[in-house]
Amino acid sequence: MKPSRRGFLGSVGVGAAGLAGAAGIAQAQLAPSRPQAAPADAEPFYGPHQAGITTPMQEQLYFASFDLAAKTRQDVVGLLRAWTEAAARLTAGLPASQAAPDPEKPPADSGEAAGLNPSRLTLTFGFGPDFFSLNGEDRYGIAARRPAALVDLQHFPGDELVAGQCGGALCVQACANDPQVAFHAVRELARIGYGAASLKWVQTGFSTANKTQGTPRNLLGFKDGTMNPSAATAAPVVWAGAEGPAWMTGGSYMVARRIRIALEHWDRMKLAFQEQTIGRQKASGAPLGGKTEFDTPDFAATDADGNPIIPETSHVRLAALVNNAGATILRRGYSYNDGANFVAERWPPWRQGIEYDSGLFFQAFQKDPRTGFIQLFEKMSRIDALNQFTTHTGSAIFACPQGVQPGRYIGQGLFEPA
Amino acid sequence: MKPSRRGFLGSVGVGAAGLAGAAGIAQAQLAPSRPQAAPADAEPFYGPHQAGITTPMQEQLYFASFDLAAKTRQDVVGLLRAWTEAAARLTAGLPASQAAPDPEKPPADSGEAAGLNPSRLTLTFGFGPDFFSLNGEDRYGIAARRPAALVDLQHFPGDELVAGQCGGALCVQACANDPQVAFHAVRELARIGYGAASLKWVQTGFSTANKTQGTPRNLLGFKDGTMNPSAATAAPVVWAGAEGPAWMTGGSYMVARRIRIALEHWDRMKLAFQEQTIGRQKASGAPLGGKTEFDTPDFAATDADGNPIIPETSHVRLAALVNNAGATILRRGYSYNDGANFVAERWPPWRQGIEYDSGLFFQAFQKDPRTGFIQLFEKMSRIDALNQFTTHTGSAIFACPQGVQPGRYIGQGLFEPA
Repeated sequence: MKPSRRGFLGSVGVGAAGLAGAAGIAQAQLAPSRPQAAPADAEPFYGPHQAGITTPMQEQLYFASFDLAAKTRQDVVGLLRAWTEAAARLTAGLPASQAAPDPEKPPADSGEAAGLNPSRLTLTFGFGPDFFSLNGEDRYGIAARRPAALVDLQHFPGDELVAGQCGGALCVQACANDPQVAFHAVRELARIGYGAASLKWVQTGFSTANKTQGTPRNLLGFKDGTMNPSAATAAPVVWAGAEGPAWMTGGSYMVARRIRIALEHWDRMKLAFQEQTIGRQKASGAPLGGKTEFDTPDFAATDADGNPIIPETSHVRLAALVNNAGATILRRGYSYNDGANFVAERWPPWRQGIEYDSGLFFQAFQKDPRTGFIQLFEKMSRIDALNQFTTHTGSAIFACPQGVQPGRYIGQGLFEPA
Repeated sequence: MKPSRRGFLGSVGVGAAGLAGAAGIAQAQLAPSRPQAAPADAEPFYGPHQAGITTPMQEQLYFASFDLAAKTRQDVVGLLRAWTEAAARLTAGLPASQAAPDPEKPPADSGEAAGLNPSRLTLTFGFGPDFFSLNGEDRYGIAARRPAALVDLQHFPGDELVAGQCGGALCVQACANDPQVAFHAVRELARIGYGAASLKWVQTGFSTANKTQGTPRNLLGFKDGTMNPSAATAAPVVWAGAEGPAWMTGGSYMVARRIRIALEHWDRMKLAFQEQTIGRQKASGAPLGGKTEFDTPDFAATDADGNPIIPETSHVRLAALVNNAGATILRRGYSYNDGANFVAERWPPWRQGIEYDSGLFFQAFQKDPRTGFIQLFEKMSRIDALNQFTTHTGSAIFACPQGVQPGRYIGQGLFEPA
C-alpha cells in the first residue's frame, strides 16, 4: 500500500494524544518530516522501472551491500515487503515508519532527516549471486530462478579486489542531493533489516552532474559520460526484456566496480600525455582531432607519420560503441573520497607516503552484462592506457528487478511467479 | 597580489595563441573556470579574520592535516606565500594557477572544478604544535613564538586515539557547498606543497546547516548547536586578542576531535533514554521540562521525587555555559561517514558485525582552548552520559592566524613581526 500523507498526519495526532501524560519528557514526537517538501524535489518510487537507474544523477551516493541472515523464504519476503513500504515513505520525504512515538520504545525513525526535503532520494534494490544460493545451498528455494545474465564476474587483469568491498546478497543504492538524506535512508533500511540482513560493505560517492550544465568532470579532471546513452536512447541498452525471467522484464543488471585512481601520479603527467591516455582534450572534452565535445571521434584519422590521432590504447577508443560490436552500457558512477592511506610506489617517481584513497565508484547498468560491461572490460582491462593509474579494488553484480506497483513488493515476481 | 579575473582571462588568450601549432592534441586550454560564478556564491578570502570560522557552515568539509618536510624557514615562508595566493584564487572560483596550459607540462590545475561555481569555498589554515618544533628541534627558528594557548592536548578519559587521525604541523580546512570543489582545493594545495608539506591525515564531513531553516540535526537525530554563539555573539568567544602574540590577534584556536558514534547501539535505545542522555526532546529540541527549542534550560527544576528534570549527566547540562564558569566555544562540526568496519561489542546487546564508522568531526573554535574546549571537556569526558555511545578516535589542535590582506601571506606576522 502507498502510505498517504493524510494517514501519516492522522497517526501523529494519535501519538500526541497518547503521550500527553507520559512522564513529561517525551511529549513531542518527530514533527511531520519535511512538511515543505515540494513535489519537484521527490522522485517517484512506483513505476515500471526502479528509480535511480535512468533517473538523472543526484549529487550524492550511499551504496550498501548486505549479507542475508534470513533463515526462511518467508523471512526474505517479509524483509522485501518491509523495505518496499519504507522506501516508498522515505523517497516521499516521510519517516521510515508511521508508528506513533513511544518513549518506552526506540524511536521509529532515527530522525536526522526530519526537516529536510526528499532531496530527490531514490532507492534502488538489487539481488546478487548470494541471494539465490550461498556456498551451494539453496536457502530460499530460488536457486533455479537465478537469471542467466546474473553471471559471476571473472577475475580481470589488474584486479586487486578486497573481499570487504566485493559482492553481497542484496544491495541498496541510495542517491540523493543531500548526503544526510541518503545516509538516513540506508540506516533506516538496515534497522528494519536487523536480524535478516546485515551490512557487508558500503560506499559513498559524489557527482556534480546535478550542478553542471554540461557533462560533469571526474577526478581525472576530464569530462566523463560524453558517450553515455541519453534519456531518450537508454531504454534498449538498460532494460532487460523477454529474453529473461518475467520479474526482470523492465529490470536491469548493475555492475559496480570500486576504482582507486592514483591521482598524485596522474597530476604529475604532462597534459599531452593525459589527453592521449583519455583520447580527448582536457578542456573541451573534444575527441583528439575534433573541435567540440560531441564531435564523432575519427578513429581512422592518422597523423603525418601514419599514427592514429586517437591512440590505439586510449580510453575513448576502447570504450566506443563502434569499436565494441554494439556492446554498451549506461554509466552512472560517482567519484569517491575515502580519505588517504599509505602507498609505496615501487616505480618512478618512487614516491611513498600518504595518498588519496579516491577515485570512481563505477556503476554500469545494462540489459545483459555479458554483452555489456564484461565485453567492454575484457578488452579495456588488458590494454587501456588508463590502467596505469587505476586499480579495481571492489567488484559486485546485482540483478535489479523491475519496478514495483503500489501494494506489491520489490522482487515479488521472483517469489510469486504469475 | 589579488589575482584579477582580467589578468586571468588575458593569460588564457596568450595560452591559446602559444599552443596553436602544438601537435594538434592540446589546442584547447581549460576554459575560464566557472564563468557563471555569482558573487553571492563566493566567500571573501581577505579580511581581518580567516574565513571558515564564523562563516555560516557550508554543506561539505574536507579537512587535511599535513606534516612539514620543508628544511628551511625560507621554504616554509615560500609554501605559505604560495598557498595564500592559490587560496585567494580557488575561493574566487579560479584555477589554482594562472599559468598558461603547456602540453609538455603537467596541467597547472587538475581541472575537476572547471565549470563549477565557487560554492562558498573557504580555506582556513592552522599551525599545529609540530609547526613550531618537532621532536624538540626548532627547525624554523620560531619555537619561542609558539603561543601559550597552543597547548598540547592531554589524554582525556575514554580517548582511543589513532595516530593516523591525530595532530599535524599544518592544517587546511576546506568547506564548500560541493564536495568536488572542497576536494579540488585541498588537492591543489597539496600539489603546490609537494616536497614541503605532505598529507598526514584527512577527514570529510557533511552538514545540513546550509539547507535547514532551523538548527541542523546530527546523526543522533537531535538538533545540534542550539546553544552555539550566534554570529552576533561569537566574536568575544572566538577571536584571540591582545593577550597573545600579535599575529594571533583576530585569529582563533581550533580543536578538532573525530568522534565515532555507535549509531546502531543508539538506535536501539528507548526514546526517553535518548532524551535523558541529551537533556532535550528529540522532536522539538526543547530542553527537558521546556516547551520550545530556545527555552532556557531550567537546571534547578526537579520532578516529584526530587530528581532533576534535566539529568546531572545529560549532555546539555554539562555543555551549558552557565554550568562551566563562562567557558564557551564556537562549535563548527560536521557529521562524517567513513563507511563501515568490523566491531565486536563485548557488552549488551553483545552484537558483533559490520558497523558504521560514522559520527561527528567536532571542531571547536575559541580564543583560548584552556578556558574553552579543555575546561568543558575535562568534565564532560568523565560524566557525560553520551560517552556510552561515543569514542574519540582523532584529536588535533591548531592556531589559526589572523586573516590576511592582499599582498601578504597567511601567518606573515609570525615570521616577520612588526
